Amino acid sequence: MKLYGATLARVEPGAVEITMPFNEELTQHHGYLHAAVVTALVDNACGFAAMTISPAGMEMLTVEYKVNFLAPASGEILIARGTVKKAGKTFIVCTGEAVMIHEGKERHVATMLATMFPLAPRISN
Amino acid sequence: MKLYGATLARVEPGAVEITMPFNEELTQHHGYLHAAVVTALVDNACGFAAMTISPAGMEMLTVEYKVNFLAPASGEILIARGTVKKAGKTFIVCTGEAVMIHEGKERHVATMLATMFPLAPRISN
Amino acid sequence: MKLYGATLARVEPGAVEITMPFNEELTQHHGYLHAAVVTALVDNACGFAAMTISPAGMEMLTVEYKVNFLAPASGEILIARGTVKKAGKTFIVCTGEAVMIHEGKERHVATMLATMFPLAPRISN
Amino acid sequence: MKLYGATLARVEPGAVEITMPFNEELTQHHGYLHAAVVTALVDNACGFAAMTISPAGMEMLTVEYKVNFLAPASGEILIARGTVKKAGKTFIVCTGEAVMIHEGKERHVATMLATMFPLAPRISN
Repeated sequence: MKLYGATLARVEPGAVEITMPFNEELTQHHGYLHAAVVTALVDNACGFAAMTISPAGMEMLTVEYKVNFLAPASGEILIARGTVKKAGKTFIVCTGEAVMIHEGKERHVATMLATMFPLAPRISN
Repeated sequence: MKLYGATLARVEPGAVEITMPFNEELTQHHGYLHAAVVTALVDNACGFAAMTISPAGMEMLTVEYKVNFLAPASGEILIARGTVKKAGKTFIVCTGEAVMIHEGKERHVATMLATMFPLAPRISN
Repeated sequence: MKLYGATLARVEPGAVEITMPFNEELTQHHGYLHAAVVTALVDNACGFAAMTISPAGMEMLTVEYKVNFLAPASGEILIARGTVKKAGKTFIVCTGEAVMIHEGKERHVATMLATMFPLAPRISN
Repeated sequence: MKLYGATLARVEPGAVEITMPFNEELTQHHGYLHAAVVTALVDNACGFAAMTISPAGMEMLTVEYKVNFLAPASGEILIARGTVKKAGKTFIVCTGEAVMIHEGKERHVATMLATMFPLAPRISN
């Protein structure tokens, strides 16, 4: 995320927002942000949201995600939002949204439904 | 839906709610409503929600859906909610939720992200 | 499955096939098998496939599934196939297919990608 | 794809294979290829596979994809395979697979089920 200039803009229990300025290096051939970049940011937002309600030190694996692309990712700022929908004993189900800010207005560009799996980190030594 | 005793409880532009009383004939071996029944109701709610914003007479095809199951479907009433997330030129993306009412409290049992495709009905004659 | 007249037609390690004769009671308004019935059979095929590679007595929960509908489910026999794609420590990822046999020819009607979670049964009492 | 050093290794009607050497710049904090990179390559392989069966000059939009992550993406070469499952009048449904080659052996790292939408390019002036 360092490379993208992304910032953790808001962190609440079960809800996280990441923002990233538009970056020409991350565009596809039409000049929109690449779908993979949008997916990565929303996946991260979901993972962080899941972490906010998990014991400290847990890693968060993405078991699977499903993304619908709603509009081209053009604009000045990408906002990725992750929200915990349900925290079960084993999984955490999250929804994620990506919006682009263009001339002060939000445009919905993608929506995600994901399954996260908290994992105690392996001790190596 | 007739067979299930399901009712279209609420219809607004882009949002539909279907309710169905618990029905022992639709349960699986643990006594919960079968996942397929839950899926069918939420799929219907999404399809109807998409219809509310489409020209009259269009049929609504489900291109695909993705469902996360969140809790067993036990309780007295199943409520399936469908909401239009984004209506594009060709597709309509909907989110759906299933909750069970048990002793007056809602429990979230499933969440859906679906792609609908409005289709002009074929004229047969 | 009893109600549907479905039969476990083939069971191998990691692969299961269920067949079901067309049944007018399970159709939607166009006379095709209902998408929920197709989904249920493929979900079952995936769950059984996952069981074939799990310790005896485990229950199999469907964490989530994603289904693409490819063609109307018309014909004489529905075949639902479930195959284990990957068995991890915690989850089992399966693919499922539904085909209809019509006048001796197979037609692909749906395809599924699902996450299963084996669970030791709760001892009651 | 230029940036990643990815190559279109195989193109057949309805099936495409892209290969990419492991690239440290595309890894996450554990040193595996980032899930977004894996997703992007498989998405591309699915899009190209859909193009191989579409009229020349069509653009291919990803309506939605669903990805299950099966193993960490470590190894020397990433292979992304896209295959057309069903070409309908409006959509093309594809399956995609990602494998890593490590010491000559294939390891399955991700599986995708995606909906593609062929679109005639807009003529601009």
